[in-house]
Amino acid sequence: MQQDDKTLQFMKAVGAVFKDVREEETHNSINKFAREYDIDRGNLSKIERGIINCRLITAWKLSEAAGIKFSEFAKRLEEKLGKDFILMDE
Amino acid sequence: MQQDDKTLQFMKAVGAVFKDVREEETHNSINKFAREYDIDRGNLSKIERGIINCRLITAWKLSEAAGIKFSEFAKRLEEKLGKDFILMDE
Repeated sequence: MQQDDKTLQFMKAVGAVFKDVREEETHNSINKFAREYDIDRGNLSKIERGIINCRLITAWKLSEAAGIKFSEFAKRLEEKLGKDFILMDE
Repeated sequence: MQQDDKTLQFMKAVGAVFKDVREEETHNSINKFAREYDIDRGNLSKIERGIINCRLITAWKLSEAAGIKFSEFAKRLEEKLGKDFILMDE
């Protein structure tokens, strides 16, 4: 697997986890969630679709907005990627 | 506290945690760590000094390079910021 494939896999997993968290924890649409927490809607949509690499502080902010701890988001991301996932090739 | 102060506090905490993790877990200098894991040295230095907002994927990569789980980094970051820290003002 190429490095780029892993980056893509990572971005997709981040997006999927945030979409799940938003839907499960807030039951808000992407529009309502973005408006309520003053998050750029277009940016959020791109993050959830896994087409941009979000900043760490944005991931913290999204976790906070969804009412979960950042470490909870981190654990869900690890579960989504699987325990054998590594980003860096040796 | 202004939003900008909180952003600054967040960046400083991220940098301090990564510096601690690199030193405690790898005992490598910033130069050696960056070279060994193919990480941009200037970028890493700026992250550790808390003067840039790193990407989530970079935070994952740095955790991996230091040999800790990303959720472990997340927990250390939460401890550093303190349990009452919130990024968003109501």
